Amino acid sequence: MADAPWLDDDEMSAWLALVGVLLRLGPALDSQVQRDAGMTHFDYQVLAMLSDAPERTLAMSELAHRVNASLSRLSHVAKKLELRGWIVRRPSPTSRRVTQCTLMPAGYDVLVAAAPDHVSTVRQLVFEGLTPEQVTQLTAIASAIRSNLDASDLRTLDG
Amino acid sequence: MADAPWLDDDEMSAWLALVGVLLRLGPALDSQVQRDAGMTHFDYQVLAMLSDAPERTLAMSELAHRVNASLSRLSHVAKKLELRGWIVRRPSPTSRRVTQCTLMPAGYDVLVAAAPDHVSTVRQLVFEGLTPEQVTQLTAIASAIRSNLDASDLRTLDG
Repeated sequence: MADAPWLDDDEMSAWLALVGVLLRLGPALDSQVQRDAGMTHFDYQVLAMLSDAPERTLAMSELAHRVNASLSRLSHVAKKLELRGWIVRRPSPTSRRVTQCTLMPAGYDVLVAAAPDHVSTVRQLVFEGLTPEQVTQLTAIASAIRSNLDASDLRTLDG
Repeated sequence: MADAPWLDDDEMSAWLALVGVLLRLGPALDSQVQRDAGMTHFDYQVLAMLSDAPERTLAMSELAHRVNASLSRLSHVAKKLELRGWIVRRPSPTSRRVTQCTLMPAGYDVLVAAAPDHVSTVRQLVFEGLTPEQVTQLTAIASAIRSNLDASDLRTLDG
C-alpha cells in the first residue's frame, strides 16, 4: 500500500461529494432533456457545440473533443441526428480526409426550442446557491480534473 | 426567456468544464474497476459504504442514500452481489419492515483487494494537481450541487 496512499479525511469528503454529483447530475439532466425535448443530454451537447461554431460547422474530430467523446461514439450519435435532419456530415472542401459536421436549420430550431428549459434546469441543479467565487473555483477544479483525464488517456494510448 | 436567464461567460466556462468531468470521469472509473476487479464502480461504492458502517451493516434505504441510487436500482445490484456471496440481505431484528444489508467476509476481501488500485486511480484522475484549498472548495461546491439535486427530487415527488 506504500505506493497507494489512502485518501485523507478532506479528500474523502470531497470524493464522496463528487461521486454523488457524478452519479446523479448526468441522469437528472438526461431525463429533463429527454422529457422536454426528446433527445439525450449528449445529443443536446452536440447541437449546442455546432451552434456556437463558425458557420455552425466543425470537423468531426474537433466536435468529438468538444463533447468529450470518442470519434466512434460521436459517429454513432451523428448518424442518428442526421436521420432526423438535424445535422449533415460531408467531406471538407479543403481536405477529403476530414469529415465536417454542420448543424441544419431544423437542428438549430430544436436546440433553440430546448434551450430555455435546459438552461433553467442547469441553473437550478448546478448554479443555485453557488457564489461567483465558487463558479470560478469550479472552473479551475474541473479543468484540472479534465487535464488529469487527458493525461490518463495518453498513458492508455502509450500502454 | 425572461424567466430563464442565459449562463454568463463564467458560468458557461464552469459548466463546460463540469460536463467534461461528468461525461468522462464516471466511465474512466468504471473501466478501471471493471478491468482490475471485475465489478462496476457502483458495485465498489456499495461494498465500500458497507465496509465503513458499524457491523458492516446498513438498512437498504440508508445504503441507497449513501450510494446516490434509487431503492429499486440498489435492489437490482444487491441481488447480483448477493449471488456472488459478497453481501447478504435480511429483515432487521428490530423491525421486520426494514431490510438490512451486510457485507460478507468474501465481499470484504474483494473490496480490500480492489481498493489500492482504485484509490490510486482516484488520486491520479481527481486529486492530482489540486491544492488542499481546492479539495475543500470541491467539497463545498459538490455538496451544494447535491443539495440542489435533493431539492429537485423532492419537487419531482411533489409534482
